[in-house]
Amino acid sequence: MHHTLHATCGPARCGQLKFPSHKTVETPTFMAVGTYGTVKGLTPAQLADTGTEIMLCNTFHMMLRPGEQIVADQGGLHRFTGWGQPMLTDSGGFQVFSLAEKRTIDEAGVTFASPIDGRSISLSPERAIQVQQALGADIIMCFDECLAYPSTETEAQHSMERSMRWAKRCQIEHSAHPSALFGIIQGGFSTPLRRQSTEILTDMDFPGYAIGGLSVGEPKPLMYEMIRSITPMMPEDKPRYLMGVGTPEDLLYGVLHGIDMFDCVMPTRNARNGHLFTSQGIIKIRNSQYKNDPTPLDPQCGCYTCTHTSKAYLHHLQKTKAMLGSTLNSLHNLSFYQTLMRTLRQHIQNGSLFEQIPHIAQRFGINPSRCMHLDKMHSARPNFLAILN
Amino acid sequence: MHHTLHATCGPARCGQLKFPSHKTVETPTFMAVGTYGTVKGLTPAQLADTGTEIMLCNTFHMMLRPGEQIVADQGGLHRFTGWGQPMLTDSGGFQVFSLAEKRTIDEAGVTFASPIDGRSISLSPERAIQVQQALGADIIMCFDECLAYPSTETEAQHSMERSMRWAKRCQIEHSAHPSALFGIIQGGFSTPLRRQSTEILTDMDFPGYAIGGLSVGEPKPLMYEMIRSITPMMPEDKPRYLMGVGTPEDLLYGVLHGIDMFDCVMPTRNARNGHLFTSQGIIKIRNSQYKNDPTPLDPQCGCYTCTHTSKAYLHHLQKTKAMLGSTLNSLHNLSFYQTLMRTLRQHIQNGSLFEQIPHIAQRFGINPSRCMHLDKMHSARPNFLAILN
Repeated sequence: MHHTLHATCGPARCGQLKFPSHKTVETPTFMAVGTYGTVKGLTPAQLADTGTEIMLCNTFHMMLRPGEQIVADQGGLHRFTGWGQPMLTDSGGFQVFSLAEKRTIDEAGVTFASPIDGRSISLSPERAIQVQQALGADIIMCFDECLAYPSTETEAQHSMERSMRWAKRCQIEHSAHPSALFGIIQGGFSTPLRRQSTEILTDMDFPGYAIGGLSVGEPKPLMYEMIRSITPMMPEDKPRYLMGVGTPEDLLYGVLHGIDMFDCVMPTRNARNGHLFTSQGIIKIRNSQYKNDPTPLDPQCGCYTCTHTSKAYLHHLQKTKAMLGSTLNSLHNLSFYQTLMRTLRQHIQNGSLFEQIPHIAQRFGINPSRCMHLDKMHSARPNFLAILN
Repeated sequence: MHHTLHATCGPARCGQLKFPSHKTVETPTFMAVGTYGTVKGLTPAQLADTGTEIMLCNTFHMMLRPGEQIVADQGGLHRFTGWGQPMLTDSGGFQVFSLAEKRTIDEAGVTFASPIDGRSISLSPERAIQVQQALGADIIMCFDECLAYPSTETEAQHSMERSMRWAKRCQIEHSAHPSALFGIIQGGFSTPLRRQSTEILTDMDFPGYAIGGLSVGEPKPLMYEMIRSITPMMPEDKPRYLMGVGTPEDLLYGVLHGIDMFDCVMPTRNARNGHLFTSQGIIKIRNSQYKNDPTPLDPQCGCYTCTHTSKAYLHHLQKTKAMLGSTLNSLHNLSFYQTLMRTLRQHIQNGSLFEQIPHIAQRFGINPSRCMHLDKMHSARPNFLAILN
């Protein structure tokens, strides 16, 4: 995988990931989450129509069903799912720690009971790499320990150190495989531990680095503080991936601080619940105020949903629990996210990102008062608060 | 609405329905069922991709949710659903008789408890027409009484006579409205009653005639016997619609006897249950034999599902209850049905329908031995059995 930077604007950067398959991804990018090898309710063609260029699959789910061997036999995730574009798999670690029952953890790895049939399954750094190589994504992730929030400094230190030892074992196991293995920075909410973790991983020289262990229940300002602290430590010439984040506001914040990659279930999960992101802010389409509303969901959006249907129809679909509601809502929310990302990339390219923040906030329904912390944390741009007000 | 016949081949006919909207439908046609204003899991664009030209909506469901007034306020079903192509609504009668609880029937109409909130709702011939006019489909149906199977000759006679009185009331209520109101032939499984019903309706001069009250639990040979008896009585210059039918074999049988329009939930409902129609016969995709099968669902099919995915992926989606499974399966089953209809139209146009039956049966997974009754019932074609064997 090659990562090229095309332009920067303050700490923000835009560029391109180019894969051995010759497929490319423009960064900063938002990755749609396709848990079981499908972004729920969308065909690969519909997913591409949203502007999505890279899809994330969950290793934990795919190893349970259908099992990585089936996917490998079927020619890997790209062929199996029909999504011919770039893919990333997580390591399974996050789900093992958050979903699996009866799990036991030691230095070797984790053993847990399958939530499908109760059988005992082990996942170790080596096994996580083997499974991901069998799945065949373009980018794969180190297996790390995911710390609960809150935790003590000592717990965070021990957990981070174990994750760093596991990262080394992942790298050794990964060997010369053509996929790109990313290291994951851990260390809880301690800046010194995060620094230590970043240095250890940078010394190992991964083709990309992720920030793990955020968006785990901590207050939003604390997450932003960590993003602000960690990003300047990360190598400039490698892609930076903020895992499991987040809202449109979080994406804006992350991009302003030099993040290149995001993933989150939010646009699709919220879509299924009728929680829609628009230029006018959040629309909860179940609300009876929309039952006879002929206007498009978001008049500023060019997606299929907004150009072919009305709020009244989406309301009806939500009330009747129609599958098509989930599909149309997901098409919109993902298109909305991808339009935000494209807009951010354009403004980085043009060098206009910072002065455009008020317009971006308005266009994407981001409450400017919520963005004020952006300024407080962005000492390089003293006029930012003034711009926002 | 104008109905033009382009060609006939024995009793089979092909032609075109042309609507005041200037939209057209090639006949014989299969109408996809969109109960609540959506063919489950398909966008209007995907529905059009299957080759579907006309969609059926259920008046019973739409009057309950969102209510016909909302649909009217939103500019009618075409605008509300985003399906800009021709539409037909049923009268609500079938659902009132099969779904509604606590119903009371008299000459005026039917009163029943809403299955949504229990409130009392009345449906009469006049009201069914008013609701359908509010919904705004291109073709609407007379409100008729739906007889349970089996019934006595006396029950069938009384019910048919009531349906004929109701048909007259529907026609008066419909007045000069631009939609096309079809009459529905009733009379249970009595040929004399069916003849009487056909004559009464023909005298009223409807722009199209439907055969109602079949596929209600009777043995298949009995249904075929009724189709064979009724179709020759029906006016040749008007479209003939066989309601609620059926399997690929039923469509073939109906077309051979001069039916122009069909509707059925079978392709979409079966799709959601993983029951798929293919050139190799029925495939139940949940079956574990498909879990590692890399071949397309139907190598002879050009639909999105068959050209982009494998049986192994469809099996995986079915096992994980993924929404996308319902979507991809529905895309295929409807495409399969529409390909069958297109094939039948072409062979009628070419005058080759009867000699092509063995190939059609093979191509569409219709068991030739099941088609033998086609021959027995088709005295005009004595060599038919020989062709099939």
